[in-house]
Amino acid sequence: MDIAALLTSAGINIALCVVLFTLYSVLRKQPSNRIVYFGRRLASVQLRSNNDDPFSLERFVPSTSWLIKAWEATEDEILAVGGLDGVVFQRILVFSIRIFSIAAVICMFLVLPVNYYGKERQHKRLGAESLDVFTIGNVQEGSVWLWAHCLALYTISCSTCALLYFEYKSITKMRLAHLKGSQTNSSHFTVLVRSIPFVPGESYSDTLKKFFTTYYPSNYLTHQMVHHSGVVQKLMDEAERMCKMLSAVSSDGGSLRPFCFCTSSTHQPESVDQPESVDGSIRYSDFEVAPPDNECPVAFVFFKTRFSAVVATQMLQSTNPMLWVTEQAPEPLDVLWSSLSIPYKQLWLRKIATLLAAIVFMFLFLVPVTFVQGLTQLDKLSKTFPFLRGLLKKNYINHVVTGYLPSVILMLFLYTVPPAMMLFSSIEAPVSRSGRKKSACLKVLYFTIWNVFFVNVLSGSVISQINVFSSVRDIPLELAKAIPTQASFFMTYVFTSGWTALACELMQLFTFVCNLIKKFILRNHEDAHDWLMSFPYYTEVPRVLLFVLIGFTCSIMAPLILPFLLIYFFMAYLIYRNQMLNVYIKKYDSGGLLWPVVHNTTVFSLVLTQIIALGVFGIKDSPVASGFTIPLVVCTLLFSEYCRQRFLPIFKKASAQVLIDMDREDENGDRFEEIYDRLRTAYCQIQLTSHELRPGRAGTRVTDATEDIPGSGGPKTGSFLRGVIQWARFMCPLRRAES
Amino acid sequence: MDIAALLTSAGINIALCVVLFTLYSVLRKQPSNRIVYFGRRLASVQLRSNNDDPFSLERFVPSTSWLIKAWEATEDEILAVGGLDGVVFQRILVFSIRIFSIAAVICMFLVLPVNYYGKERQHKRLGAESLDVFTIGNVQEGSVWLWAHCLALYTISCSTCALLYFEYKSITKMRLAHLKGSQTNSSHFTVLVRSIPFVPGESYSDTLKKFFTTYYPSNYLTHQMVHHSGVVQKLMDEAERMCKMLSAVSSDGGSLRPFCFCTSSTHQPESVDQPESVDGSIRYSDFEVAPPDNECPVAFVFFKTRFSAVVATQMLQSTNPMLWVTEQAPEPLDVLWSSLSIPYKQLWLRKIATLLAAIVFMFLFLVPVTFVQGLTQLDKLSKTFPFLRGLLKKNYINHVVTGYLPSVILMLFLYTVPPAMMLFSSIEAPVSRSGRKKSACLKVLYFTIWNVFFVNVLSGSVISQINVFSSVRDIPLELAKAIPTQASFFMTYVFTSGWTALACELMQLFTFVCNLIKKFILRNHEDAHDWLMSFPYYTEVPRVLLFVLIGFTCSIMAPLILPFLLIYFFMAYLIYRNQMLNVYIKKYDSGGLLWPVVHNTTVFSLVLTQIIALGVFGIKDSPVASGFTIPLVVCTLLFSEYCRQRFLPIFKKASAQVLIDMDREDENGDRFEEIYDRLRTAYCQIQLTSHELRPGRAGTRVTDATEDIPGSGGPKTGSFLRGVIQWARFMCPLRRAES
Repeated sequence: MDIAALLTSAGINIALCVVLFTLYSVLRKQPSNRIVYFGRRLASVQLRSNNDDPFSLERFVPSTSWLIKAWEATEDEILAVGGLDGVVFQRILVFSIRIFSIAAVICMFLVLPVNYYGKERQHKRLGAESLDVFTIGNVQEGSVWLWAHCLALYTISCSTCALLYFEYKSITKMRLAHLKGSQTNSSHFTVLVRSIPFVPGESYSDTLKKFFTTYYPSNYLTHQMVHHSGVVQKLMDEAERMCKMLSAVSSDGGSLRPFCFCTSSTHQPESVDQPESVDGSIRYSDFEVAPPDNECPVAFVFFKTRFSAVVATQMLQSTNPMLWVTEQAPEPLDVLWSSLSIPYKQLWLRKIATLLAAIVFMFLFLVPVTFVQGLTQLDKLSKTFPFLRGLLKKNYINHVVTGYLPSVILMLFLYTVPPAMMLFSSIEAPVSRSGRKKSACLKVLYFTIWNVFFVNVLSGSVISQINVFSSVRDIPLELAKAIPTQASFFMTYVFTSGWTALACELMQLFTFVCNLIKKFILRNHEDAHDWLMSFPYYTEVPRVLLFVLIGFTCSIMAPLILPFLLIYFFMAYLIYRNQMLNVYIKKYDSGGLLWPVVHNTTVFSLVLTQIIALGVFGIKDSPVASGFTIPLVVCTLLFSEYCRQRFLPIFKKASAQVLIDMDREDENGDRFEEIYDRLRTAYCQIQLTSHELRPGRAGTRVTDATEDIPGSGGPKTGSFLRGVIQWARFMCPLRRAES
Repeated sequence: MDIAALLTSAGINIALCVVLFTLYSVLRKQPSNRIVYFGRRLASVQLRSNNDDPFSLERFVPSTSWLIKAWEATEDEILAVGGLDGVVFQRILVFSIRIFSIAAVICMFLVLPVNYYGKERQHKRLGAESLDVFTIGNVQEGSVWLWAHCLALYTISCSTCALLYFEYKSITKMRLAHLKGSQTNSSHFTVLVRSIPFVPGESYSDTLKKFFTTYYPSNYLTHQMVHHSGVVQKLMDEAERMCKMLSAVSSDGGSLRPFCFCTSSTHQPESVDQPESVDGSIRYSDFEVAPPDNECPVAFVFFKTRFSAVVATQMLQSTNPMLWVTEQAPEPLDVLWSSLSIPYKQLWLRKIATLLAAIVFMFLFLVPVTFVQGLTQLDKLSKTFPFLRGLLKKNYINHVVTGYLPSVILMLFLYTVPPAMMLFSSIEAPVSRSGRKKSACLKVLYFTIWNVFFVNVLSGSVISQINVFSSVRDIPLELAKAIPTQASFFMTYVFTSGWTALACELMQLFTFVCNLIKKFILRNHEDAHDWLMSFPYYTEVPRVLLFVLIGFTCSIMAPLILPFLLIYFFMAYLIYRNQMLNVYIKKYDSGGLLWPVVHNTTVFSLVLTQIIALGVFGIKDSPVASGFTIPLVVCTLLFSEYCRQRFLPIFKKASAQVLIDMDREDENGDRFEEIYDRLRTAYCQIQLTSHELRPGRAGTRVTDATEDIPGSGGPKTGSFLRGVIQWARFMCPLRRAES
């Protein structure tokens, strides 16, 4: 690929981005698109509705005000709307911008000239210059100028470690502050007990009560059994049917509130975390009298203090480790009720099965990836398909096929990955939504790094690829040979999967189209709050981390990629901020649990870069540079181990000191009774099953709020449309499994 | 190698064994060798001394009574003298005997004939028959008889899994019983706190007291600081000097007790676990007033109940995971005081450093191993050293060189491994002796499996070995090709490192020679109780597990090895029983912590066998047999995972149920006050430093006990002799680092 092809690709993508940004800045001003672009604001009633005049000019003029607003938002605002998880995501981007700014400066001004003038040759005019001229492949063997690369590697490694350390430290501090600040969090007092043993003639509830009153007499408060979701589901379906009937009857009136179990929105507007039963709703206590055959051997046990709850989760309870399994309960809205009824003994088998399935899926994916790789090597393609030869000879087609098509195809295939991984994670039956997301995130991350990075780099074609896996020792050398030649592919990947995907994210294309169909074809003007989603960390974190990996590995090999990458990170910073402020709602907060994953992946990328550099210095006959790189690898690994010792435990366990201090504070303030009252109704299985159909109490509040905003319709969701939406959500590959 | 060479090797070893056994049965009856062969019995005064007549005939007639006594000992006796660890070791041997009996039956009667008649050929007379004829290498490609091997593999795998399951279950039960039975164990109430933060103007002791009275007010009992060993050592050296002077002064009297700090043998004969200070000894409380600069930031904190102590160990204490690090304290006699003064922050660095050092050591060891391998291939040897050609042509020399020399040389080199690994483990600074031993055991195990098994199998010579590591995918095939040809080496290895090493173990050659020098050259008739050792699990467990690995992998490939292996396991069973009953003392008991290691290694061996079988069936063109083997591998791995879920947590954490029940029992019996009194003096740094010089209170009791046995001298150890013993212990490669 030459500079012209690269510019073609960049041009197409820049044009696409500009069009999409302009469209966005217009569309967001239309009241009918509010639910698409301001979902979160609608949910929290911050939206001023001043553009309702249907023919005001301002509504159709593109503007950049949203960019400025996104830029001006402070970290506290992000923390308020996106939680600690949102801040952590922003920090990934800030970290990337910082480190790649440093890398870009040193690599563009030191490494790039060395590469370009590395071999004595007649340089062509810049447009026809091959991209290989800008890579380390152009440097003479045994050149003394390799010290420039070594110096750049040292600078990048040292600044990465320093930045990572400070980020880890500050996020740990924020996590502790988050913990201390969440005084009302019911999950701190709650222990999820699984695998309660069956005692003949006793209900699980009695067995559990007996056990905890015996062994934790002074700290046990009460408990709540989990019931088979089948039973709950049946009740729910009945209720839902009634709700629809009522809704249909009152469709002309538009004033009847949707009937929903366990919600208390009419009584307490700020009761997101404190549902209380109203008349007609089913209280958890009603289940206590349910026949025992409906009970699962699973329960939430409430303790009197946070400390005692954590003690109960950390201890091995019985002499049989497969019984009385305790773990910290997730937040009430975070509980995945359907997983709880799955027997504990199945879990390890399910985990192994999904692991195997994910690995098989990863290897099946090699087929499209190698096809994509074939496209970048045009000569091979025209050999395989001779009838294309005439077409491919045209310069423009050539540029598009080599410069643009491969990464578009890859990107389309990649869209199937997150839902598949989410499915695998669901089969694993994690107890919380955030746990499922984290597990899916890890799977997508491994998948992306393997299939997008390694397979692309190591396989020029299907044939050469088979031999690659048989030789472990040569992998650094293979990588060192392959990365400079694959740099052009990664650049186009940054354009398509980076820039354009960001613009699509901003446009919310799928939701936008659904909304359009609903409002202008089906003529339903209700804002469908089913569409409110939480931030899809499990697709976005792996994507950003992949770019970090590409950035590191290409930095000293093919520094031309760095400016494009920096543009991506800047855009991502602004766009994700905008989306967090306007689009995504926060349902629960894992407290920054993703940061250790980010940290480890970044260290992995850095070490991989250093190992590849070792290989390159080996190929280029520079023993001095190789010699200087080895201590760098060792130091980076030691740094990583130190961080693991110093910070990681905070993300795994709660500290006794903090918990006891919080307990004392509540005790001194006589707040315990109030907390206990709240605890008793915090976990409501039936309500949260309902929540799966509509976005829970947050959603209910939204329904209330929208009534104050002009232009928003009443709660008249017909069952047909609901079916369409359900189908649409099912078909949407990126967001479906989210709910 | 042919049958004759094998028989030569077996003959040499059998002769050696018979001589050593006979010698042992005579020597053990001599009163002067009592300390060598009856150390444990002397320590517990069970020895009847009826053979003191210097010229009774019975003393010089070889006998087998010891074998019968060892055979007749019950498991309860072993439990009493060797602790749970001893029983676990016996169980390894019993398990091996069981599984290899099954394997031997099926392989000798089914697989061996199939191998022998596998190819249609003229069989020579049995003596000149090459050993390869008995291996799977002799089976025709595509033979239908491979189902025999497949069936044997299934039988062996299924019986291994069943036996392993029942062993794990029964050992778990024993561990729980052991826990419940050790009511007086001070370590249950004690938490080791490391990395106490430095607060200006406060001693560590004050800081600690403040922390625990704040956060564990109802459960904190008291604490005891650890002091820099330099300070303690200085005191000790002074005392030791005085002790020697006193000892020298009273050497003619022989009635003066050795002066030893903190012992209370005169007051309480059964006070092994409950030392109390007598007049003249230094109490731990004396240290409380010591200047704070002598304190380490390490302390033993005593809690009021077992449950609260375990809670404190399981929780993360502070917001900085590198401060206030808590862990379960080891038993008082198990504490490795010298490690405690090492700063906690160094530990992770030390661990990494020793890991690297151990890996380097492993690879350096390739040199002797490949040299040994060269010896089994005589043609290569005579090519390299042409002057040997004449010598090697002689039949007898040939047999010795190929059949006997290689494993003797390997064995001699292997004797340097355990002390080296023990040294590495000491650098890691574990807090307990049992922890150090377990760490050394793991290192020796990995080392042995890698260097004795893999390197021997995979490397015919230095040259062919380098290429082996570059190809991962081919390893099963390589192993499948190599194992049948290397079977002869492993057989001779069983003879030398198995049979003869057992006989040497029985003879206690080194201690015996030292004793001889002392008693007949130096004319010192005191029994040196410094020689009393605990069982060297870290050398013996890896040795036995290596034979298990060899047994599994060779079972269906070269079944001729199985009878020899069975003989080894039978002998080991009897001899180790005898040694446990008579020689080794029990200083502390880890409660069977080694069993998970044994279980995992056995599963690893089994899976390796199955993978090699896969390779063999592949080479032999038997897709059906390969197809049947794959589900076997999967099932074995699932079985291993199930055991990990079901049993392993019991070996990692104490169960709340058990601890609370024990606490309640003590509370109801009003035994807590008594326990607290004992706790306050349980951990005595100065006494245990003294213990390192002589075997502690157990040793002191021994000194008392021996006075009742005729023929044992008084406590007259001259400083010169002590120096010699110290030197001897230093030089003894197998036992030195033990102490």
